[in-house]
Amino acid sequence: MPDLAYVNGKIMPIEKAVVPIEDRGYQFGDGVYEFIASYEGHLFMLEEHLDRLERSMRELAFDPISRADIRKAVLNLFNRSGYQRAGIYIQISRGVAPRNHAITPGMTPQIIMTIRPVKEMPETLRKNGATAITVEDTRWCRCDIKTVQLLANSLAKQKSLDAGCDDAIFVSSQGIVREGTSSNLFIVSGGRLVTHPLTNNILPGITRMVVLDISRDAGLDVEETFFGTDALYGADEVFLTGTVTELLPIVRIDGKSIGDGKVGQTTRRLYDLLRKQALAGGAA
Amino acid sequence: MPDLAYVNGKIMPIEKAVVPIEDRGYQFGDGVYEFIASYEGHLFMLEEHLDRLERSMRELAFDPISRADIRKAVLNLFNRSGYQRAGIYIQISRGVAPRNHAITPGMTPQIIMTIRPVKEMPETLRKNGATAITVEDTRWCRCDIKTVQLLANSLAKQKSLDAGCDDAIFVSSQGIVREGTSSNLFIVSGGRLVTHPLTNNILPGITRMVVLDISRDAGLDVEETFFGTDALYGADEVFLTGTVTELLPIVRIDGKSIGDGKVGQTTRRLYDLLRKQALAGGAA
Repeated sequence: MPDLAYVNGKIMPIEKAVVPIEDRGYQFGDGVYEFIASYEGHLFMLEEHLDRLERSMRELAFDPISRADIRKAVLNLFNRSGYQRAGIYIQISRGVAPRNHAITPGMTPQIIMTIRPVKEMPETLRKNGATAITVEDTRWCRCDIKTVQLLANSLAKQKSLDAGCDDAIFVSSQGIVREGTSSNLFIVSGGRLVTHPLTNNILPGITRMVVLDISRDAGLDVEETFFGTDALYGADEVFLTGTVTELLPIVRIDGKSIGDGKVGQTTRRLYDLLRKQALAGGAA
Repeated sequence: MPDLAYVNGKIMPIEKAVVPIEDRGYQFGDGVYEFIASYEGHLFMLEEHLDRLERSMRELAFDPISRADIRKAVLNLFNRSGYQRAGIYIQISRGVAPRNHAITPGMTPQIIMTIRPVKEMPETLRKNGATAITVEDTRWCRCDIKTVQLLANSLAKQKSLDAGCDDAIFVSSQGIVREGTSSNLFIVSGGRLVTHPLTNNILPGITRMVVLDISRDAGLDVEETFFGTDALYGADEVFLTGTVTELLPIVRIDGKSIGDGKVGQTTRRLYDLLRKQALAGGAA
């Protein structure tokens, strides 16, 4: 059962999958995407990912595509792969037209997908925690839309690796702590869970939403509010959330230990609850 | 002699030209570009465009490509087309790899090009001037690199058309007037020419550079400095510069007439000097 690609209705090996050079995804970054993971043969939070995909397309005024058609294509590809623990990447671009900043009317959105086994986070990172650097948030101002305008994210990720760390945390020019390069960020301080509120500057993460729900259900004190690097460095615990990231402890940032430099209790507890929910197929 | 595309060494019809879906240009907007125009069979400012292309690649730490090879490919495509007044679009992406924010080492940059006749600006716009709206600059913070992170540019351009205007002018959240969606911006005030200085927030335009040179040679008082919307609305003349834009008068912004609402003398004079230089093949 090989890795597969899907291009506008056709399934093929990934290396055969191509798009026209005048796809606006290629020449303008005019495309949106989702990444969906399965656990034990069940896609986790499929409808929530489709919700967000629809919202992304609506925010950019793409010509609409039937949600039922997208769902069917996703499920078909998933079934064809036979993977139990799959990662499905879906990208929809506005369409193909001779290069023009103005949007040519009547373009047909292009859909591509890939499916591969999820590349799991290294077990040592989960156990001992990851390290991060902070970087200035140089991204555009609509990070709430899941677009392929990802060059700043990629450069920040690479910068963190070059610095011997695992990820980068975006901090606004005003010192507000935003999120990771492909994940949201939470801190635990004095028993309270805090994360950046939903604005144009961060991704409305599906795992973020699940973790907020789980935390409230677990009776934790939760706040969505702005905070700065002092609160970040001074937190008892810090973790990132995302579809592949799941819930990843960060124990060192900019060379400073977070708390006692070990993975904290709240992080551990929430990770276990998240895994439990994912393995249960998404039902809360 | 048809429009043509070039993909990594091969020339073909544009509609046959494709790239892999895992080209990082498609999934991360990790690509840079240039647009070069010819006049009467001569490419204008070819070396300056190659300079900027090399700088863009260097800033993003792409694996290098021989400038001589790029030049040869451009000239070959140009000759094959036979077009006298051609527009050549060149895009180079970092390479192809399974999707990963981190940069996979050893990728080979991908080069694509298209050649078509230049789509000239409508003569009425040149004669009577164009209209514009201002929009907040929501782009990322490295607009000095000519990347395909262009979604904000495209959306702003479309917004201006939807508003019945011809282009949009980006203004920073602090009120600094930056540039157009695919052009630089100049104002003429009290006989002095003013444009935004070269920073990370604007493109180092080739035509901008030519116009600055021409203006200085013509004995005009020229200043590269920051200015706000009051200076923009209150200017005697406003114009945009770019490879296809050349030098385009703007006579109305946000519904306000610029000067007497007619194309100004300095704009006219500089346009004539620019055309003269372009038709002379680029020699000053």
